[in-house]
Amino acid sequence: MRNKLLSLVSLCLLVAAAFAVVQPDDALPSWRDGDARDAIVDFVQRVTKVGGDEFVPPAERIAVFDNDGTLWAEQPLYFQALYIFDRVAELAPEHPEWKTTEPFASILKGDVKAALAGGEEALLELMAATHGGISTEDFSDSVRSWLEEARHPKTGKRFDEMVYQPMLEVLEYLRANGFKTFIISGGGIDFMRVFAEEVYGIPPEQVFGSSVAAEYKLVDGVPTIVKLPKLHFFDDKEGKPVGVHMHIGRRPIAAFGNSDGDFQMLEWTTAGPGARLGLYVHHDDAEREWAYDRESHIGKLARGLDEAESRGWTLVSMKDDWKRIFPFDEPR
Amino acid sequence: MRNKLLSLVSLCLLVAAAFAVVQPDDALPSWRDGDARDAIVDFVQRVTKVGGDEFVPPAERIAVFDNDGTLWAEQPLYFQALYIFDRVAELAPEHPEWKTTEPFASILKGDVKAALAGGEEALLELMAATHGGISTEDFSDSVRSWLEEARHPKTGKRFDEMVYQPMLEVLEYLRANGFKTFIISGGGIDFMRVFAEEVYGIPPEQVFGSSVAAEYKLVDGVPTIVKLPKLHFFDDKEGKPVGVHMHIGRRPIAAFGNSDGDFQMLEWTTAGPGARLGLYVHHDDAEREWAYDRESHIGKLARGLDEAESRGWTLVSMKDDWKRIFPFDEPR
Repeated sequence: MRNKLLSLVSLCLLVAAAFAVVQPDDALPSWRDGDARDAIVDFVQRVTKVGGDEFVPPAERIAVFDNDGTLWAEQPLYFQALYIFDRVAELAPEHPEWKTTEPFASILKGDVKAALAGGEEALLELMAATHGGISTEDFSDSVRSWLEEARHPKTGKRFDEMVYQPMLEVLEYLRANGFKTFIISGGGIDFMRVFAEEVYGIPPEQVFGSSVAAEYKLVDGVPTIVKLPKLHFFDDKEGKPVGVHMHIGRRPIAAFGNSDGDFQMLEWTTAGPGARLGLYVHHDDAEREWAYDRESHIGKLARGLDEAESRGWTLVSMKDDWKRIFPFDEPR
Repeated sequence: MRNKLLSLVSLCLLVAAAFAVVQPDDALPSWRDGDARDAIVDFVQRVTKVGGDEFVPPAERIAVFDNDGTLWAEQPLYFQALYIFDRVAELAPEHPEWKTTEPFASILKGDVKAALAGGEEALLELMAATHGGISTEDFSDSVRSWLEEARHPKTGKRFDEMVYQPMLEVLEYLRANGFKTFIISGGGIDFMRVFAEEVYGIPPEQVFGSSVAAEYKLVDGVPTIVKLPKLHFFDDKEGKPVGVHMHIGRRPIAAFGNSDGDFQMLEWTTAGPGARLGLYVHHDDAEREWAYDRESHIGKLARGLDEAESRGWTLVSMKDDWKRIFPFDEPR
């Protein structure tokens, strides 16, 4: 009886699903009418049109997304860097030598600028130093607790609320059209996996990023994977297409980024045959978010700005193309 | 009109799907009744029973499979080793120094035993040396051609026909019950991705294995990922749980292997809470396949044999539990 009821419920759901057609008008409500929105919708319609010249089978509908600055904000600093700074403060009592060792000393003094003088590579080293020697499960717990407690210095919001509503809609719209969505980010793979499923609907196995090495061993008899203080893979710039290849094993047909760190991923994606979508989110809304590009230390976008048009990539103006930025914004 | 027709067809398919219940009797026809088959069916029923104590949501139904010796045969030598030997012969004219450098010299003389004196690590080095300096796309083409032409020295069959029919059924049965199936193998990731989708129904992004490093660059202006002659990750023994973590990011609930190289993957998988399945395929059928375990250079199974029972892992006898081994066998 119970089984019959379940079958009936499933049947109704399936019938409903068969009739539900995802119309772009419903799917992208936070996007203003314009070239950027048209480019996304046009691309999706071309690759999903059964019998069309540019039809792509669902298994090959792979879309890759950068995370920092593309799916969530990255100012005044990558959110993971803020986590790392909090973690350095937390671990400092166990590391008296940090008081006199850079970049730890600067972090402990609150001098972010000096701490980051070494650029993104320095940040990666910091990631290795602070994420090492901890089990993968304890690390996830630590990130989870931090996300519960930490608040963004400007908005006062939880960091995982500072995601871009229009991009959440793109993720959903692509998935509703048979795409598999992946994160390919310079950020730490284990860091992002803590929230990607709940926030973006992207399961851990579809998240790839920079990583430290790890080892498997028994700790007090318990099988444990321990993160090591040693960089394993730096998933940025030329590393991104390599990361895409390692993790996915086929070339995506759509790539979304916001900085020159994503350039090669867009280049690799759009160099394939058939319909392709390369898209840059341009941070040009100083009022509702931040405005930065060529001169920024975070999310620098110079070559991408210069070449997007000639390469046929879509440049999204956050200011003009998006009705709202964050889910907590009022649309305008 | 056309759209309406399509909707109608979809509807019928969906209605059919709603009523199609995968009965284990239909799903595992090549398995004899017995403890091994019962263990698989019992596990699947427990984790899929809605409202049951051991119910696992579909997103967490992750099953990992070793490849060599678990999904396809591995005698007289890992099939990828045979590909490598053929590749060494093919590349030899460009490498006159190989005539006097081991292990190349032994391979070129046909002395497999001497060539493999260095064990699996030597094989990995050979993989790096022969798989390097070629684009990922050319490499895939090379493997594809080889699979078309090469034949197994004993059966005369294509290598991708030498897969285990009962395991193909397990893969299908798990997927029909909401599982996501992954390969986690000591074999080369790019090698396996060439045939895994067609042969096992496992898409490239769900295949993980040992790998060489790679770099992204423009070759004559064309974006290219080039494999490098340098080992990046050795996905065996303690490396397997680490590979599982890197690639999937959550602990599987079922793991299938055949050798001590899979021991840690089974250990990591079955150490998690709730219902778990650890399963070893035991090669004990000298007549229909090969019989080997403790003393074998390929697929050595000693610790696994000793500890399977005490760890609650299922030991499958190919001889007794399988009605047929290969799809081309007559069932008996």
